[in-house]
Amino acid sequence: MSAAPADPAYPPIDPTDPVFVAHEGGKLTMTATKPLRGADDLSLLYTPGVADVCRAVARDGSLAGRYTTRGRMVAVVSDGTAVLGLGDIGPLAALPVMEGKAVLFKHFGGIDAVPVCLETGSADELVDTIARIAPTYGAINLEDISAPRCFEIEERLKERLDIPVFHDDQHGTAIVVLAGLLNAARVVGRELSTLRVVVSGAGAAGAAVAKLLQQGGVRDVVVVDSRGIVSPLRHDLTPHKVALAATTNPRNLSGSLADAMDGADVFVGVSGGTVPEDVLARMAPGAIIFALANPDPEVHPTVAVRYAAVVATGRSDFPNQINNVLAFPGIFRGALDSGATAISEEMKLAAARAIAALVPEPTAEAIIPSVFAPGVADAVAAAVARLA
Amino acid sequence: MSAAPADPAYPPIDPTDPVFVAHEGGKLTMTATKPLRGADDLSLLYTPGVADVCRAVARDGSLAGRYTTRGRMVAVVSDGTAVLGLGDIGPLAALPVMEGKAVLFKHFGGIDAVPVCLETGSADELVDTIARIAPTYGAINLEDISAPRCFEIEERLKERLDIPVFHDDQHGTAIVVLAGLLNAARVVGRELSTLRVVVSGAGAAGAAVAKLLQQGGVRDVVVVDSRGIVSPLRHDLTPHKVALAATTNPRNLSGSLADAMDGADVFVGVSGGTVPEDVLARMAPGAIIFALANPDPEVHPTVAVRYAAVVATGRSDFPNQINNVLAFPGIFRGALDSGATAISEEMKLAAARAIAALVPEPTAEAIIPSVFAPGVADAVAAAVARLA
Repeated sequence: MSAAPADPAYPPIDPTDPVFVAHEGGKLTMTATKPLRGADDLSLLYTPGVADVCRAVARDGSLAGRYTTRGRMVAVVSDGTAVLGLGDIGPLAALPVMEGKAVLFKHFGGIDAVPVCLETGSADELVDTIARIAPTYGAINLEDISAPRCFEIEERLKERLDIPVFHDDQHGTAIVVLAGLLNAARVVGRELSTLRVVVSGAGAAGAAVAKLLQQGGVRDVVVVDSRGIVSPLRHDLTPHKVALAATTNPRNLSGSLADAMDGADVFVGVSGGTVPEDVLARMAPGAIIFALANPDPEVHPTVAVRYAAVVATGRSDFPNQINNVLAFPGIFRGALDSGATAISEEMKLAAARAIAALVPEPTAEAIIPSVFAPGVADAVAAAVARLA
Repeated sequence: MSAAPADPAYPPIDPTDPVFVAHEGGKLTMTATKPLRGADDLSLLYTPGVADVCRAVARDGSLAGRYTTRGRMVAVVSDGTAVLGLGDIGPLAALPVMEGKAVLFKHFGGIDAVPVCLETGSADELVDTIARIAPTYGAINLEDISAPRCFEIEERLKERLDIPVFHDDQHGTAIVVLAGLLNAARVVGRELSTLRVVVSGAGAAGAAVAKLLQQGGVRDVVVVDSRGIVSPLRHDLTPHKVALAATTNPRNLSGSLADAMDGADVFVGVSGGTVPEDVLARMAPGAIIFALANPDPEVHPTVAVRYAAVVATGRSDFPNQINNVLAFPGIFRGALDSGATAISEEMKLAAARAIAALVPEPTAEAIIPSVFAPGVADAVAAAVARLA
């Protein structure tokens, strides 16, 4: 692939900016775990000794988990079509994010992860390419792949591969939202089954949040996209939204976000839009607001607290940060350690409950552990591995 | 892909065998190069800071070399169809070799390399898959891909990609053979242009050796495969052997290996067969024998010395080890450091000359540097970078 030429419309970057200083030379390095001190080591780690390991794996593929890096190596795969809030910036420009994700995998989960940025066109190409590289890895983390392609791509890969495939933008977000909601409900003294939840956003995160909240016990979930409430009455729905309309919105609402918010107990924003105050004012007393768009929440937390008893965002500079890093390192750690061939719905629920349980006495300002709280990944990994 | 089931016909492996102990848990680990001490570091290495780097690379792709790992990351790619002497053992069983190669890249060249083992069928699939993952890497090392597919695959990838693509089984071998021959010729007081060279083997290594020796100055190269001398008179030649027949064998020989060896000055074995002593006896006085099959040379060095003035093998336990590791770390180091978009024929020649020059006073027992001699990769890298 060709690099994009420099665009004279943009100013040159500032190499002294702390962000660019932190990225100088990239953020990852691959090193050997075994010493190579001389000819003897060489004959063990490479020819002729390595041939014995190759023969053994050829006879019994399960030995690859023990005698290669595969058992702890995760591919962080993206085609660069939905990177952060930047959109379709392509595989090369997505690389800094995938490297960063690999850094998080290692730091929080002790997992060796490598970026794999793909220059592909169709979903078919993406699925085929990932399936073909799969022998190298113990699990696949899909990242920043645009909706609705991401749903089909993940489903097809899960069918085709016997290693875990996990689209973090969907499920990581959903798990941490459910974890936060479990504790927020305790703070306001409610059961999940009685809550009316509005999910703003019907992309990768919104669809997964709606699904997992229902599996976690919420009965009344209404999803809203940029055109309003997702309902069977609409004729402009893509196939995955038709499925969402069929499984959500039990009171058969139609209309705008404002209509959905009438009497709602919970708002989960994963849309990146803005929610006006008069819409927030429609929520029920003791409401819960998760405004997760980053870096600009759908409603600023200093405003949200005027309309809600519990407020969470995706930001580290306010209380209650809903951050995927609470989930994915432990999810993959648990799956790899237990030899799981997939991440089941039960594992996602168990992960959410394990994260919530790390805050035994939740308060309005502490419903979720800090990203840097010790033991989060271990607790999640143990909960996931128990179900493998 | 599914792991092969354990075959009861084979005994279980011995986990206390030093080779298996050395492979326990695999041989590679991916780590961060930047500290992640808390929320501030997180916001530099990941969101929100990383978005600035993504935007910059989206505008000017050349910045990926500076601000991602791409500038020093090499993919060691194999489909497992021609692994060592083991043949087509598949991508999973090839993984230990590719990990070992990555260890060598790091140890000898300071290069971050990752294995990529591919489950592919046709050459088309292999080419497409490698082209699609290419945005992630600064260069591609092809490894253990069966001939004659490897020739077409490498050529098509070189056309399609603007990063170096190098099939080490071909070119790494050819470079080190040429390096050894340059010094062996000095030991016996000959010019390359006057030497009659027999190359036994017309696969990946044999074809590349024949080609590079000619580019290095040898005029009389005769290639022999399992059916005899490769010549235009044969009707059983694959397309790449037709091309070899057209460019080698200037005396239009035909017949067997024994016929080719009549009066030959140099034997280069990259075939894995065995050469009988009566055939060796046909060589000219002061002959040079490179018996490179591993671990069993085409002729044992203790026998070869009775028929040749200079003997080299692929083994570390005899003098003059012809080992690719003398070439590929420096080749890639030089290409990455200089931003080369391809490895040219001139670079290969320069690499061979640089390796030969590291032995200023060659003798029959020292025509080539030791694999662990200091400065080999640096010298090769400098020679390659000078031509970029």
